Amino acid sequence: MIPRQFRLLPEHLYPSDEWSIIERSYSDTWMGNAETIFSVGNGFLGVRGTFEEGRPTIEAGTFCNGFHETWQIVHAEEAYGFARTGQTMVNVPDATVIKLYVDDEPLYLPTARLTSYERRLDFKTGVLQRELTWSSPAGKQVTIRSRRLVSFEHRHVSAVEYEVVLDTDAPVVLSSQLLNRQDARATDEPGNGNGKSDPRRAKGFTQRVLNARDHINQDQRVVTGYRTTNSRMTLGVGMDHILETENQWFAENSWSQDLSKVVFTIEAKAGVPIRLTKFATYHTSRSVPAIELVDRSMRTLDRTMREGYASIETAQREYLSRFWERADIVVGAEPRVQQAVRWNIFQLCQASARAETTGIPAKGLTGQAYEGHYFWDTEIYVAPFLTYTESRITRNLLRFRHSMLNPARERAKELSEPGALFPWRTINGEEASSYYAAGTAQYHINADIAYAIKSYVAIRGDSDLLAEVGAEILVETARLWAGLGFFGPESGSFHIHGVTGPDEYTTVVNDNTFTNLMARENLRYAAEVVEWLKEHRPDAYRHLVHETKLKNDEVVYWRRAAESMYIPYDKERGIHPQDENFLEKEVWDFANTPVARYPLLLHYHPLVIYRHQVIKQADVVLAMVLLGDQFSIEQKRRNFDYYDPLTTGDSSLSACVQAILAAEIGYADKALEYFQYALLMDLADVAGNTVDGVHIASTGGVWMVLTYGFGGMRDFHGKLSFAPRIPESWSTLEFSLRFHGRTLQMVFNHEEYSFELQEGEPITIEVCGKELYLDHREAVKVPACVHDARDGCVEKQHQQPTLEEGLPPC
Amino acid sequence: MIPRQFRLLPEHLYPSDEWSIIERSYSDTWMGNAETIFSVGNGFLGVRGTFEEGRPTIEAGTFCNGFHETWQIVHAEEAYGFARTGQTMVNVPDATVIKLYVDDEPLYLPTARLTSYERRLDFKTGVLQRELTWSSPAGKQVTIRSRRLVSFEHRHVSAVEYEVVLDTDAPVVLSSQLLNRQDARATDEPGNGNGKSDPRRAKGFTQRVLNARDHINQDQRVVTGYRTTNSRMTLGVGMDHILETENQWFAENSWSQDLSKVVFTIEAKAGVPIRLTKFATYHTSRSVPAIELVDRSMRTLDRTMREGYASIETAQREYLSRFWERADIVVGAEPRVQQAVRWNIFQLCQASARAETTGIPAKGLTGQAYEGHYFWDTEIYVAPFLTYTESRITRNLLRFRHSMLNPARERAKELSEPGALFPWRTINGEEASSYYAAGTAQYHINADIAYAIKSYVAIRGDSDLLAEVGAEILVETARLWAGLGFFGPESGSFHIHGVTGPDEYTTVVNDNTFTNLMARENLRYAAEVVEWLKEHRPDAYRHLVHETKLKNDEVVYWRRAAESMYIPYDKERGIHPQDENFLEKEVWDFANTPVARYPLLLHYHPLVIYRHQVIKQADVVLAMVLLGDQFSIEQKRRNFDYYDPLTTGDSSLSACVQAILAAEIGYADKALEYFQYALLMDLADVAGNTVDGVHIASTGGVWMVLTYGFGGMRDFHGKLSFAPRIPESWSTLEFSLRFHGRTLQMVFNHEEYSFELQEGEPITIEVCGKELYLDHREAVKVPACVHDARDGCVEKQHQQPTLEEGLPPC
Repeated sequence: MIPRQFRLLPEHLYPSDEWSIIERSYSDTWMGNAETIFSVGNGFLGVRGTFEEGRPTIEAGTFCNGFHETWQIVHAEEAYGFARTGQTMVNVPDATVIKLYVDDEPLYLPTARLTSYERRLDFKTGVLQRELTWSSPAGKQVTIRSRRLVSFEHRHVSAVEYEVVLDTDAPVVLSSQLLNRQDARATDEPGNGNGKSDPRRAKGFTQRVLNARDHINQDQRVVTGYRTTNSRMTLGVGMDHILETENQWFAENSWSQDLSKVVFTIEAKAGVPIRLTKFATYHTSRSVPAIELVDRSMRTLDRTMREGYASIETAQREYLSRFWERADIVVGAEPRVQQAVRWNIFQLCQASARAETTGIPAKGLTGQAYEGHYFWDTEIYVAPFLTYTESRITRNLLRFRHSMLNPARERAKELSEPGALFPWRTINGEEASSYYAAGTAQYHINADIAYAIKSYVAIRGDSDLLAEVGAEILVETARLWAGLGFFGPESGSFHIHGVTGPDEYTTVVNDNTFTNLMARENLRYAAEVVEWLKEHRPDAYRHLVHETKLKNDEVVYWRRAAESMYIPYDKERGIHPQDENFLEKEVWDFANTPVARYPLLLHYHPLVIYRHQVIKQADVVLAMVLLGDQFSIEQKRRNFDYYDPLTTGDSSLSACVQAILAAEIGYADKALEYFQYALLMDLADVAGNTVDGVHIASTGGVWMVLTYGFGGMRDFHGKLSFAPRIPESWSTLEFSLRFHGRTLQMVFNHEEYSFELQEGEPITIEVCGKELYLDHREAVKVPACVHDARDGCVEKQHQQPTLEEGLPPC
Repeated sequence: MIPRQFRLLPEHLYPSDEWSIIERSYSDTWMGNAETIFSVGNGFLGVRGTFEEGRPTIEAGTFCNGFHETWQIVHAEEAYGFARTGQTMVNVPDATVIKLYVDDEPLYLPTARLTSYERRLDFKTGVLQRELTWSSPAGKQVTIRSRRLVSFEHRHVSAVEYEVVLDTDAPVVLSSQLLNRQDARATDEPGNGNGKSDPRRAKGFTQRVLNARDHINQDQRVVTGYRTTNSRMTLGVGMDHILETENQWFAENSWSQDLSKVVFTIEAKAGVPIRLTKFATYHTSRSVPAIELVDRSMRTLDRTMREGYASIETAQREYLSRFWERADIVVGAEPRVQQAVRWNIFQLCQASARAETTGIPAKGLTGQAYEGHYFWDTEIYVAPFLTYTESRITRNLLRFRHSMLNPARERAKELSEPGALFPWRTINGEEASSYYAAGTAQYHINADIAYAIKSYVAIRGDSDLLAEVGAEILVETARLWAGLGFFGPESGSFHIHGVTGPDEYTTVVNDNTFTNLMARENLRYAAEVVEWLKEHRPDAYRHLVHETKLKNDEVVYWRRAAESMYIPYDKERGIHPQDENFLEKEVWDFANTPVARYPLLLHYHPLVIYRHQVIKQADVVLAMVLLGDQFSIEQKRRNFDYYDPLTTGDSSLSACVQAILAAEIGYADKALEYFQYALLMDLADVAGNTVDGVHIASTGGVWMVLTYGFGGMRDFHGKLSFAPRIPESWSTLEFSLRFHGRTLQMVFNHEEYSFELQEGEPITIEVCGKELYLDHREAVKVPACVHDARDGCVEKQHQQPTLEEGLPPC
């Protein structure tokens, strides 16, 4: 990988803390990144870490998962089947804003004299809190404490508690707002963003997005029902308030389509605290009228007002306590590493916890970049974490994919294929990728989904999902492969041409190794599941046959295609070419490419990139991680040695994968180096665009490096195995997994490994190639693995043959 | 090729005539096609064959070559180096409109009772004339004769003569207009087009294009100076009139930005003719202010008013008489074939005659489709005709390419290459192709231009062009190839990857045979010319070295690259794969592709098309025509046999090329079949889009089939040879060529061939493999060739080796 620059958060401003991320001073420089890093969310609702005062801000944003506006994609040159429907997650009205005026002077952080300041996002409480003392222009000391959360327990609720105390009497105004920034942006409302317009970020709509259809403003409550202009989705947004103070005060509300307010005017006395609690609620729908969502918002506000802020915060803490029990990873490294590890895991929680009937956007709900679209990131980078810690969420995500099967069938038809082709990027199920070479051509999305289904079933040890929705997805995805590929007239091998693999610096190629391997897996598993269903779930089988009009000979064909799948292999070099013609290309001139010209995609025409051996992100290397049982350790090392110098890491999906494989083949230094890129992707702005939102796939990747990479955990064929490779500089690595209804707790150090079965039936796992029986008596300790001369060769060979014969089995 | 449907012009409406195209009745059905077919133009100014009455019309259009508006290309997904500047030829104000009112009733052809009607475009006079009798609603007989021309002699002038005679007294109004349809279209002026909006046609601007800057209206003259909004080009347009009649009349003028009028009100007496002559003039510029073009327009109108219509028509006739002397081809076939042949050649004249300091748009000046862009069509499809009949025009076109060398150098830089890369499509020199896979990736444009330079020099026998501009183009294009290609580390062969050849159904491939062969030619010729210049034109050489900073070792490298050029060859099949991986692809399922799904590009996603063996247009077959001396006749036949069934002919550039090669290898029926597709491309609407304008490349292709194909003419290595293959059903084929300052006249029939040297020094040519000496004494007659068992093998082998050894020389 090309060495990247870390733009580390300076320790004096952002000190280490194992359970929170802290900001010690207001900073213009770091504001954009901090807005992302201090985001709070619950997988349905997300709020960027902007200040309560509403400004300044680089990219303020509040998002409801799946709530999007559509627009017609206009192609500079049209062609048949190009994506037509643009989809962009809407920046919904911002309910965080509480403007403070003392003596009619606003608190404006960039110019305010702050005698103390701390902001903290606490991973245990799930609360973003801030405490500061403002020495006002008139010399008054104003102490402000605020707390903000998006509730994990109450899916539709966010809340702010804002407390002000003065050392002198003064008139105080708190203007609590609900600000529609999405449309205010178009109308150029001042103080709204810094005017940057980078086309990679999100669609700047030229027309109004949110149209108010109904509203209620009574007392300290304002609720608005909106409908979007094109997608006709509806949104209910509301806020309500509780002001607690011994001071004299009164409140007034006002409503307008883009800015509603409840303004509190307070005669503040010295030392008499003012505490404003603000609840906000968001409801969205594809079908229900706005007025109905206004109603739902009213009921939600009623309930939260009854419960009160303290109770919601308690529930928040309890939720997270359960989360960390399942998901925490303890590393025996410096606190900064532990902090970063927990920040990444916390992001996974915030992106997924309440993502029900939706997917997980590439940036979670922390930014509008990538338009809030769902990619393969979910199935390949996030699902492993979820399945091992809270498989219910994986099931929801796979059920959501199933709900998009009909548009995927339509899309396959447009692409002249049978079955279903899932969109490369989407919110509503339609393909939204407007550049097919690095979009629709990534047919592997189909196999990625099938892979996630297989993993879910294998890790959970539960086949219900197959009968419910999995089998139907498997049938339709297998059909796509059967139609797309063909048997070479001479070789008799099954080929898949004209596809793009994970590496987007090499597009529309023949027989991409990753794609062919994953498609083979898809075909095999589909056949296996259909036969299993026939035998064990005859009713579900009949239902499946009815729904899909499945024919017996199709399954036979899938097996034949899978067994004949062509896998490129270069005997001379002993490596798997990324695709059939990859090795024939000219090697990129890395020596003469200045660091400033990365990422290459911003500095070279696609034609230049595509005709060279240069890789954006792990491709064959990813195949060796996902399908690691199908490669010998020697192949892994040779492939890694070949591809590693060609890989720019211009994608955030790469470093974690490279780290896992590097660990497996015994390249400890590289493993740690790549782990750090993944770990600090956002915290040290490795990709240079932290401001646009969290790289959720990379946060999932961090979990994978810790468990698969350093923990050496593998789960091929439903069997759990470990061959830990803890970094030299770390003392321990502790994590927990749920597997087949069991809870396992692992503690690894350089001397010994401890395995504890905390819940569930006894189980035999494999450690460093040896079987280990676990029951409830106590933690079982075994000495640390000794990696032999063929370093990394710790797993036994499974039934499946390696791809190429002639190489000695591992 | 996939059989196409002819939509033949019905004989009773469009009868045969060897020297003109005739319309016998007003027809709604054929109106759109007729607008294209009856276009008049001179290569600078073109006017579609719409009616003087101004409506109805399908696509009215008046165009000045190179006069364009620019706009920003917005890509659905941006990437580095994508084309930025859209360029669209403007529909300039229409000066053909003369509306006729009798008794205040307008003449409107669709509803008028016409007792006689004939429209005729005469290839000898270059005049579009119409004669009709209108039986008015009031029962009056109105006889109208009109004549329209765009002058070959006066580059900036068009003229209309409009004559009316009535059988009864009546008030008559003639409203002569200058109508800005480009902007009226945007404002939805009624009666302007039929509302169709096909994105392939032309850019519908959303903003005003032509802004009036100055105008003069005095008496019967109106002149307006415009400037375009974005490209800042200027246009002067004017009209002036002469009314000749014994009747009482008066005239009034009026001006507005989009519609100027001179209205003649006449008290017409029975039998007293009214003749209105209308002159129009168009001047364009990139740099001169509009007011200056108003001035030029005034002077042009002054001059044409002095000369008068009759004198301009005489000059027109004389110009064409000289043209036909050089360019006519007489075929001993039914008159309909002769008519079509002459119509095609006449289009070549109309597209090129006065194309000075511009290129030739894909549709000439007969339509706004393809935005009026210049493609490789000029160099490969039109230049042969021009070079053999009026090489001065080829020289202008190549000098025009040279004028675009600087933007081409910039473009090469953007594509990370040295030298120059000419745009795939352009008006102003910048790349305007917004889909790189079938645009910028067609690097072969560079070699096509080099090929045209070489051909020009070889046919004219004159090297001045090289010293003037040719060498500089050759150096910069050769440099591009040297940078783009690379020596394979193992084979040592020179490879060119990531390019698209002529066939746009197969894109971004490695080692496209056509491209590699043409690039080799480019490299070789550049080296040759540099060395020739050094020896014979030392001043020009010094100038070249100064301008291009040429190094000696570059030339050495070009030679080495050329000699090591990798040319794909499949030994087993004995054919040249279209590219390195073409034969590995799945063959398109032609059997299950209904005729209605052609052209495929309108019915299949590019990914589907690209991954199959299916060809839009001749690719290897074109290489075998352009570089026919580099293939043995056996190779030609095997290649043709392989590619012919895969070729859809979805491009109009294909049929003519296939015809030439079919003729050469003795496939007489196919040759004639493909010739007919080319010949009738527009006249029988083979491509289904005649309405959008004439396929100029195909008209050039018709000339090529007649000379290269049926005439068996070849000119490799500066030697002229013939091996005629006249279609069975034809009695004769006669044509004339200019070659090395000589004029040669050929008359071929099935018994003998006659060659006459009409001008210039004696010359030795080759006929059916035997040398033939021609001097001025008289036509030399030789018996017709007998094609031997290896049918078609009539040429001697030249020095250059065939591409692949082992095959017997021809």
